[in-house]
Amino acid sequence: MYNYPIKVQRLINEISKLPGIGNKMAERIALYILRQDKLFIDNLSRAIDDIKLINFCQRCFNISEDKLCEICKDDNRDPSIICVVESPLDIISIEKTGKFTGTYHILNGLINPLNNILPDNLKIQELIKRIKDEKNIKEIILAINHTVEGDTTTLYIISAIKENLLNVKITRLAKGLPTGSDIKYADEITLGQAIMERKEV
Amino acid sequence: MYNYPIKVQRLINEISKLPGIGNKMAERIALYILRQDKLFIDNLSRAIDDIKLINFCQRCFNISEDKLCEICKDDNRDPSIICVVESPLDIISIEKTGKFTGTYHILNGLINPLNNILPDNLKIQELIKRIKDEKNIKEIILAINHTVEGDTTTLYIISAIKENLLNVKITRLAKGLPTGSDIKYADEITLGQAIMERKEV
Repeated sequence: MYNYPIKVQRLINEISKLPGIGNKMAERIALYILRQDKLFIDNLSRAIDDIKLINFCQRCFNISEDKLCEICKDDNRDPSIICVVESPLDIISIEKTGKFTGTYHILNGLINPLNNILPDNLKIQELIKRIKDEKNIKEIILAINHTVEGDTTTLYIISAIKENLLNVKITRLAKGLPTGSDIKYADEITLGQAIMERKEV
Repeated sequence: MYNYPIKVQRLINEISKLPGIGNKMAERIALYILRQDKLFIDNLSRAIDDIKLINFCQRCFNISEDKLCEICKDDNRDPSIICVVESPLDIISIEKTGKFTGTYHILNGLINPLNNILPDNLKIQELIKRIKDEKNIKEIILAINHTVEGDTTTLYIISAIKENLLNVKITRLAKGLPTGSDIKYADEITLGQAIMERKEV
């Protein structure tokens, strides 16, 4: 049966390995790349190739070009507060708020036994070691999604910190109604949480 | 403001230029690539780079590694019937049916003045020249989508063939009800076409 030339087929295969891209979309993207000029293709392949030069921060596991990431190297950041997040994407979101001036610790995922992601695959032991080594840590903020995997991971980290008798304050992001939301349309779990966690004014 | 290292940001930018990929998805794909091993990254960047070696068939403009594509080189194909299609994707679909043994001519798009795609941007003049040069062409099948752009392009090609006084049969793909469809649920335009183009049995 007639098919694409082998080089085109190989490109479709490689693209379809990327997350969120099915076979039809990979085909469309490959044929699009095929029609672009040399410069476009060079820029794309070089950008991918250059990513091999990117490392992870030895301290917080954020993506970084050096041994320490920009945040860990920044003397204006408070090293005594560590915000624990799932991925570098979360850091960008939190930094955009401008409300946090501490440091981070990236887990690189959440506990999910069904997908074979166990506590040892995440940077949890590294977090415990960091709290012990750096000594002056005052607070651990667990900025982890309120999902089944997120809650499992949060509980696991809390118990690991307590087992190691580490004397740090542990906090979680506040649950409640999103800004600009309407009580009429809030889902019952979110509204229930907002009622339970109500604050005196 | 804190952002990704420049190499990561550049990869996100390049990926977001691909069709159907927004900024958030480009971010997700870039961070996914970042976490893969050297082999995965090498395979992807090389597959993209290799696409520069792909050419277009000099005769039908299908994608090809040589001057002529596999179909044009194949002696078992009937050169007197040319199926005119929008893109190489259509060839794969038509070949899968196993119902066509002629050759193709790829337009590389459809007339769409709003997107600045005019008849001269497509391989229409090349089709007219091909019919004149190859002399033995008997039939031109216009396998073009039944959309506004498709119908405009179809009409343009029909009039270009007639203006050049070329003696070839021109056909279009049959319109009608899709196989396995239910008359109750067919849209009125499709059903109307199926009634108008009904056949004696």
